[in-house]
Amino acid sequence: MKARVSIIMGSTSDLKVMEKAAQTLDDFEIPFEIHALSAHRTPKEVEEFASGAADRGIEVIIAAAGMAAHLPGVIAASTTVPVIGVPINATLDGMDALLAIVQMPPGIPVATVGINAAMNAALLAIQMMATGDKELAKRFADYKQGLKQKIVKANAELKEVKFRFKTN
Amino acid sequence: MKARVSIIMGSTSDLKVMEKAAQTLDDFEIPFEIHALSAHRTPKEVEEFASGAADRGIEVIIAAAGMAAHLPGVIAASTTVPVIGVPINATLDGMDALLAIVQMPPGIPVATVGINAAMNAALLAIQMMATGDKELAKRFADYKQGLKQKIVKANAELKEVKFRFKTN
Amino acid sequence: MKARVSIIMGSTSDLKVMEKAAQTLDDFEIPFEIHALSAHRTPKEVEEFASGAADRGIEVIIAAAGMAAHLPGVIAASTTVPVIGVPINATLDGMDALLAIVQMPPGIPVATVGINAAMNAALLAIQMMATGDKELAKRFADYKQGLKQKIVKANAELKEVKFRFKTN
Amino acid sequence: MKARVSIIMGSTSDLKVMEKAAQTLDDFEIPFEIHALSAHRTPKEVEEFASGAADRGIEVIIAAAGMAAHLPGVIAASTTVPVIGVPINATLDGMDALLAIVQMPPGIPVATVGINAAMNAALLAIQMMATGDKELAKRFADYKQGLKQKIVKANAELKEVKFRFKTN
Amino acid sequence: MKARVSIIMGSTSDLKVMEKAAQTLDDFEIPFEIHALSAHRTPKEVEEFASGAADRGIEVIIAAAGMAAHLPGVIAASTTVPVIGVPINATLDGMDALLAIVQMPPGIPVATVGINAAMNAALLAIQMMATGDKELAKRFADYKQGLKQKIVKANAELKEVKFRFKTN
Amino acid sequence: MKARVSIIMGSTSDLKVMEKAAQTLDDFEIPFEIHALSAHRTPKEVEEFASGAADRGIEVIIAAAGMAAHLPGVIAASTTVPVIGVPINATLDGMDALLAIVQMPPGIPVATVGINAAMNAALLAIQMMATGDKELAKRFADYKQGLKQKIVKANAELKEVKFRFKTN
Amino acid sequence: MKARVSIIMGSTSDLKVMEKAAQTLDDFEIPFEIHALSAHRTPKEVEEFASGAADRGIEVIIAAAGMAAHLPGVIAASTTVPVIGVPINATLDGMDALLAIVQMPPGIPVATVGINAAMNAALLAIQMMATGDKELAKRFADYKQGLKQKIVKANAELKEVKFRFKTN
Amino acid sequence: MKARVSIIMGSTSDLKVMEKAAQTLDDFEIPFEIHALSAHRTPKEVEEFASGAADRGIEVIIAAAGMAAHLPGVIAASTTVPVIGVPINATLDGMDALLAIVQMPPGIPVATVGINAAMNAALLAIQMMATGDKELAKRFADYKQGLKQKIVKANAELKEVKFRFKTN
Repeated sequence: MKARVSIIMGSTSDLKVMEKAAQTLDDFEIPFEIHALSAHRTPKEVEEFASGAADRGIEVIIAAAGMAAHLPGVIAASTTVPVIGVPINATLDGMDALLAIVQMPPGIPVATVGINAAMNAALLAIQMMATGDKELAKRFADYKQGLKQKIVKANAELKEVKFRFKTN
Repeated sequence: MKARVSIIMGSTSDLKVMEKAAQTLDDFEIPFEIHALSAHRTPKEVEEFASGAADRGIEVIIAAAGMAAHLPGVIAASTTVPVIGVPINATLDGMDALLAIVQMPPGIPVATVGINAAMNAALLAIQMMATGDKELAKRFADYKQGLKQKIVKANAELKEVKFRFKTN
Repeated sequence: MKARVSIIMGSTSDLKVMEKAAQTLDDFEIPFEIHALSAHRTPKEVEEFASGAADRGIEVIIAAAGMAAHLPGVIAASTTVPVIGVPINATLDGMDALLAIVQMPPGIPVATVGINAAMNAALLAIQMMATGDKELAKRFADYKQGLKQKIVKANAELKEVKFRFKTN
Repeated sequence: MKARVSIIMGSTSDLKVMEKAAQTLDDFEIPFEIHALSAHRTPKEVEEFASGAADRGIEVIIAAAGMAAHLPGVIAASTTVPVIGVPINATLDGMDALLAIVQMPPGIPVATVGINAAMNAALLAIQMMATGDKELAKRFADYKQGLKQKIVKANAELKEVKFRFKTN
Repeated sequence: MKARVSIIMGSTSDLKVMEKAAQTLDDFEIPFEIHALSAHRTPKEVEEFASGAADRGIEVIIAAAGMAAHLPGVIAASTTVPVIGVPINATLDGMDALLAIVQMPPGIPVATVGINAAMNAALLAIQMMATGDKELAKRFADYKQGLKQKIVKANAELKEVKFRFKTN
Repeated sequence: MKARVSIIMGSTSDLKVMEKAAQTLDDFEIPFEIHALSAHRTPKEVEEFASGAADRGIEVIIAAAGMAAHLPGVIAASTTVPVIGVPINATLDGMDALLAIVQMPPGIPVATVGINAAMNAALLAIQMMATGDKELAKRFADYKQGLKQKIVKANAELKEVKFRFKTN
Repeated sequence: MKARVSIIMGSTSDLKVMEKAAQTLDDFEIPFEIHALSAHRTPKEVEEFASGAADRGIEVIIAAAGMAAHLPGVIAASTTVPVIGVPINATLDGMDALLAIVQMPPGIPVATVGINAAMNAALLAIQMMATGDKELAKRFADYKQGLKQKIVKANAELKEVKFRFKTN
Repeated sequence: MKARVSIIMGSTSDLKVMEKAAQTLDDFEIPFEIHALSAHRTPKEVEEFASGAADRGIEVIIAAAGMAAHLPGVIAASTTVPVIGVPINATLDGMDALLAIVQMPPGIPVATVGINAAMNAALLAIQMMATGDKELAKRFADYKQGLKQKIVKANAELKEVKFRFKTN
């Protein structure tokens, strides 16, 4: 089994946010790897990882970082593989991380998802790979159908809420 | 009893904020309904709900949403009924939801109230309906008179606060 | 002809933004009045205007203000008529005005529209009045149908844009 | 004993912040009063209070408010007495209240202090009154001298902190 | 020639920003289409477009929007194709659009690029498609190599800058 | 003629904002002085100025500063005279200056007015001095009466605005 | 043992943040001193400290402050020694302190580190001194090598995380 | 002549801001070099430059960047030389660049100066080198003395400003 997606984070403290990305890939049976790398503590290892990712068969990289969040952009600089950036809320409600990830200069995009949005990062990775993988596209379409179940369930619960002038 | 107001939210977790809207409508004896709908999980149901609301006799729609809060604007797109948007504080102190609700493009307004301001949403709905309903206008005028009681009570409590140089 | 809507602003310099509200009401043939009032320069006149508006037959008040924008909230304090607040961009990109208008305390809502969104204020006023005025509701529904024309026109223009690999 | 300073707040929940203003005035033996007033719930009472304050001998008004904080500006509109505004942190870390208080239009200033800065509001009131009251100016000068004691004490504590390479 | 990428915008005024996306796709010889669609003016057309995109062979959708920028999220709601969102700076320096696009709820990600970053949106689309298209991956790798030319050229220019104590 | 008010600024470039403060004091016939001082370039001169101001008969100090606006707070540190701070919009729309002036620590308030609000600074200085100067209080009350003239004039102009359905 | 670095703070409550700076200097065996000083409570002592620091052999000053954080800039005004400013998160997530420290006018820089970043302040002080101290430069280079150990350890921990489709 | 300071920027468009840094170093007769490097376009060259800087005799690095400004932090990751970061105002008034530069994680500080504050960056570099260079310290002290001339000149100009009640 060879990883198709790499999940990269700067410290194990990010794992409590990022494990939702791992779980989502697992649910879709997408082989993935998890590594700790730091744009500032291990710059050479980041460069090696990024420039070798395509050849190792990695199709998408998910990189999470907080504060002056350079990791996703620095990885994107050294790979042709699409990079998904997850801003982690470490300080300033995550606004510093969001801006440091999304405002990339022309030529090196990072596909940014919401603050702490690890599950969405995994789903976006799946959508990217599905552009060239019809079977995965099918599985994602099925998953998408299922999203409405949460609303169906919410409606059932809201039906139980009682007010005198509530009509449903 | 036919609902005059629809309260729409994206998940039951919004109920703890939005139940004040329900309670306020209940206190004014305005028939209302509560539904869960999601601009992103159930887009077709949102469109069906919104485009059918006027014919079902709904006079005002109250829609609550957090984060990238699209629900009020998306409902407004498919109905002629006025839509009141309640930004829910889910992230970023609710600033993301406030901006995503209030900054609508020309042609499709959303009447936005304050962050988490569910009670004000219901009062605004009542004021809207009262433009064509004199009896309700009368009841709202009475309610408004009562607002000062909270200040009367506060003054009574502040009278009890003791300082050497306090004169009242 | 008796005004149904009042447009209130603090100075004639706001007119260049607010004339779109006037034009929109004019297009819908809704009688309206325009007054200059200031929460800070003419507080008594504001109170008189607001507390008398309902009896004069005003159904909706549109109030525009910039900076520490108190006018919409102060009017709302003294009337039962719904008040639509238009934050004017005078300083800080209009964020001061938006927050000073939308964050009203419980009991006294202001229906806030986007920064400088004068046309949307008028449309919202029309939607409010249409809750009790079927003929107006009909006219608003027709207007809404027409909104898509702008997109039809845009598509026609985009068709003319030429690129080698553009397929439409 | 006749009040020289009025402390105004919109609800008793603000008292836990504002009691520092009362305590500071008490320490300076300045007679003061505390009232609850609301720009939105009791607009007429605010107008009566403000327009009568000068004649009752009030020399400075301290007004506290949160969210769309209109109270200080609305009081300032109806009095010639200087008004000190205290932004209360109720939402958005108090930024909405700060902007709604400080960004007053030309002609009607509010002397704004920091978010929740009740003690500073009282000290500023004392400084204002001391412009025409030499004895009070003397007492304030003495108080000011004492401020450095906190730093003297801090230095004594910091001396006790032990590190191998700490030299003092 | 069948379009692989759709560029969607709400008005032709966005074209001056988005034509860089078109030009970039053109340079890579990727067939694409451009449509005007509005989440608020033409909600049904958006739904039809989005739900049919995969079957028409569209592999990636690029959607640009300003202000309360709902278009990318609303498209994402009705398609399995990955959606790239471009926040347009129409008001508030584009911060309203950025937050309204990036802060999507769990289940429906939008791959957000920087404010007005149309060229990066196209490059990200190419990277996504290249996950399943080795020839395109090769062309993107070549493009990436070329990025450093801009720096080489900048260094040549900086060499010409003269100061007495400049050593290079 | 001895100055009662000092206007302090860090550079002559602030004069174009601050001359409104000078003009307002002039209109009220309040003797005043203008000095350039910098908390960072001339710290000793600031300390000398501030600690000597009371003895020279200065009753209020108005200090303007932009960016990391330390001048008002640093002056307040060394005087018992009330200090009014004017945040100058030099960068970041003046938000850096506003926060650097208003958020003073307990013990040393600065009476902050709006961004660039030079005229309001002068009016506030007059109100402060009027707490101990009945003649000045009378003149300020007269001035305040005159404020409504601007609104009277605005209403006259708005009367001239023509729309078919405008009723006034 | 003579101090090479001064750590300055406004109150002992800042010590819980700043002790990391002290600990870091201690680990590098750099003699340092800690003082409490306040730009507002003890302006003369600040001036004396700052203007005498170079002659006492102080090579770098680290100054921490929150809110309207003037201390680092005011110290910088009176010394030629480089000043490192640490914005303390006391209010507004530390944004007020950050802007009040970093936005210094031309001529008087403050080397600003992140919000609450006391350890980085000490490391920066060491880097500054190492520009003229080869032995210290060597020790810092060794420290820097060690930074990657945290990532090595994180990778070891991440290896233990189990998912069905995790490949490493 | 061997460079002691490196000025690094991402494009020649930053030169119009950064030439003040060059001019200031030139005025102090500090040999320096200017290079274009990009964290995203030329990551390897950045790594080579940074890791070799100390051995080449570079004592301080000044790095300027806008938007998602990674360059200063990425250089800091690979060198022991102190790095001064200059946030360039390219978008969002420079707030994105400021946060992306200043909020560095523990272990790798960047000495951040104000937005566009190129001259201050050079002065800070000089102060850093002066910690181990007494002659340079002397020259910087002289420069600092001269700063007050700008205020002396401003006072002379302000003396010429005429008002009836201006006393100086």
